[in-house]
Amino acid sequence: MQERNEEQVRVHETQKVQNQELIYLDHAATSWPKPASVIEAVMEAMQKDAANPGRGSHAMAVRASRILFDTRKVLAKLFRIKNPNDIAFALNTTMALNTAIKGLLKPGDHVIATAVEHNSVRRPLEYLKKTIGIQVTYVEPNTAGELDAKQVGDAITASTKLVVVNHSSNLLGSILPVGEIGEITRSHGIKLLVDAAQTAGLMEIDVEQMGIDMLAFPGHKGLLGPLGTGGLYIQPDVELEPLLHGGTGSQSEAIEQPSVRPDRYEAGTQNAVGISGLRAGVKHILHETVQNIHTREWMLTQQMMEGLLSVNGIRLLGPELGKPRTGIVSFVIDGADPSEVGFILDQHYQIAVRTGFHCTPLAHGTAGTTETGAIRASVGCFTTKDEVETFIAAVKEIKRHYS
Amino acid sequence: MQERNEEQVRVHETQKVQNQELIYLDHAATSWPKPASVIEAVMEAMQKDAANPGRGSHAMAVRASRILFDTRKVLAKLFRIKNPNDIAFALNTTMALNTAIKGLLKPGDHVIATAVEHNSVRRPLEYLKKTIGIQVTYVEPNTAGELDAKQVGDAITASTKLVVVNHSSNLLGSILPVGEIGEITRSHGIKLLVDAAQTAGLMEIDVEQMGIDMLAFPGHKGLLGPLGTGGLYIQPDVELEPLLHGGTGSQSEAIEQPSVRPDRYEAGTQNAVGISGLRAGVKHILHETVQNIHTREWMLTQQMMEGLLSVNGIRLLGPELGKPRTGIVSFVIDGADPSEVGFILDQHYQIAVRTGFHCTPLAHGTAGTTETGAIRASVGCFTTKDEVETFIAAVKEIKRHYS
Repeated sequence: MQERNEEQVRVHETQKVQNQELIYLDHAATSWPKPASVIEAVMEAMQKDAANPGRGSHAMAVRASRILFDTRKVLAKLFRIKNPNDIAFALNTTMALNTAIKGLLKPGDHVIATAVEHNSVRRPLEYLKKTIGIQVTYVEPNTAGELDAKQVGDAITASTKLVVVNHSSNLLGSILPVGEIGEITRSHGIKLLVDAAQTAGLMEIDVEQMGIDMLAFPGHKGLLGPLGTGGLYIQPDVELEPLLHGGTGSQSEAIEQPSVRPDRYEAGTQNAVGISGLRAGVKHILHETVQNIHTREWMLTQQMMEGLLSVNGIRLLGPELGKPRTGIVSFVIDGADPSEVGFILDQHYQIAVRTGFHCTPLAHGTAGTTETGAIRASVGCFTTKDEVETFIAAVKEIKRHYS
Repeated sequence: MQERNEEQVRVHETQKVQNQELIYLDHAATSWPKPASVIEAVMEAMQKDAANPGRGSHAMAVRASRILFDTRKVLAKLFRIKNPNDIAFALNTTMALNTAIKGLLKPGDHVIATAVEHNSVRRPLEYLKKTIGIQVTYVEPNTAGELDAKQVGDAITASTKLVVVNHSSNLLGSILPVGEIGEITRSHGIKLLVDAAQTAGLMEIDVEQMGIDMLAFPGHKGLLGPLGTGGLYIQPDVELEPLLHGGTGSQSEAIEQPSVRPDRYEAGTQNAVGISGLRAGVKHILHETVQNIHTREWMLTQQMMEGLLSVNGIRLLGPELGKPRTGIVSFVIDGADPSEVGFILDQHYQIAVRTGFHCTPLAHGTAGTTETGAIRASVGCFTTKDEVETFIAAVKEIKRHYS
């Protein structure tokens, strides 16, 4: 495992000092702190490059455009995308997923999703089911959230147009077999949309090799960029009706949205300042390597799981110890309301976790926690082993109160 | 006219030094520089409050939620909105306008817009015309972009559902009679959507008094916030189908988008960092007062117009000298390609203006510049009289080359 480098130390100096004793275990919601380089990039862009990208030819506007272009380039490198212009920026993953789902589907289309999808997939699908008449099959993973790709194959019908899966469940941390699913969808000529909310920057993603036609990703989670960033990769042969119609700074005289990418999918002023931070975040990841970050996070989850498993009356959700998972460890404590546990962790221990339903009600059905919700602790690339130990000790103390 | 205060001086010290001699006259695209307080707010939020707002109950997530709530409050104060929760944040004005237009209109509805609308209004309308069958009437202002509210009244039919107008043309700087139009729409039970891209923070807007049912506004122009911010006010009686379906952190178990505001119109992770900057921008405006900012900008446009009018062969677009306008002065130089003039201003004088069609092709029809486009110089609240003088002198020099 890689040693923590100078950059990692520096981030703690500049940011953690403001939240002195805080142990932040809510990385699945958004990563914090950010690398110092991300904060510096945002600052620098605001101070010297923050013109409207693509909306003028003066030097500052050109620099703002270059930020967008450069960021597409590093994202393309990370996800092995051939043409950076096949990436469109978005406010968040939800916007990217809405663009993909609503832009592709037509009345009568059949869609396969899973029972561990986030509401950002489920709600657009249910909306289209109700309004334009699509059909949706939710295939059911096992109780740990693990799916056999064959289940997707078995659900295919003559009218299946799209398969949507998240790469990792935001509740269970299980990893879905995207590459195998991609082989199946490719062989059937069906499009594959992957929700990489929990894996972008945290697990290897190769859109070509994995057969991904559309990849929706957040900028502010594993990619370490600021809130307000995200994007959608759209394979060149996939044609979507844009979610937004409006100005692009190109082909102003046309009544219709320009067909040229990325303009077609980026109406209105883009967040060049946030995207500058995203560029720095992706560079940080390319430098650390996704493999190292993933291994480090996995080891932290194993440490956390071992600690929690040693306590009677704590039930862990998701894959078993030793199995693949992302940095998410969700659990319930017998007889304890998860919200109350979260409140105590926050107020008495300064430990930030998430409790409740995590926008993924079906996954709670899968895990058997529909009534209670769960406590979710999620690690990030700046989480330390000491922090995990402190967290385990805190949960043990809390558990004693309920025994 | 108000003296430049300390805050204004400070902004130049921290930002302008990085673009030493730059004269930025592209405020209609985005404002620059930002008040120092805006940059500090973004920094502080990134460093200590940048959890996922509304997605957890831990202290940092609560602080992030509070940023959103507080920003809604200052925006509500600025626009005289009763309930701050009737404001939904958006990536940009285009997203806000798409939310309003696509969320409201149904097949067969008739819409009245003007010929000086931006593509962010025209393209969504033309898209709906083509796909679901709405009817659109574009009423034609005079060549200066000025409109008589009566023209809107005359265009009303039995199926008119919506009137959309920009408060000021982004090409001509003319101010449209929103309040008078609001009286007409209100008396007919028709909804009024106002595109305040060029006026939010720069002209008084009172949604109640002006009869505005929906107000789309950018965060990064007159409101002095960062790129990547904007929003939509939706009057309580107006019910829109959300543009985005997804997670809101509330009512996770429901299949449908929650009905509670603002959650209903804010799916996915919000840009709490950018919005923190927006809050600082709005506070700056409330302190300076909209009236003072508007008066100051208007005087700068008059100075600029007088200077340009003194040159033979320069034709100004928009309202005449002495008449109301926003901070936009567009013009053409006889025999000169606007793009070339813009290029020379940028390269030889370090003056940033915008040239071309400004995403508003119909307005060029109104002004008679469809073939050539125009040069647009737009002032902001940190523009100085000296900068305007330097700009006029530069244009005079350039003009001599074409004579």
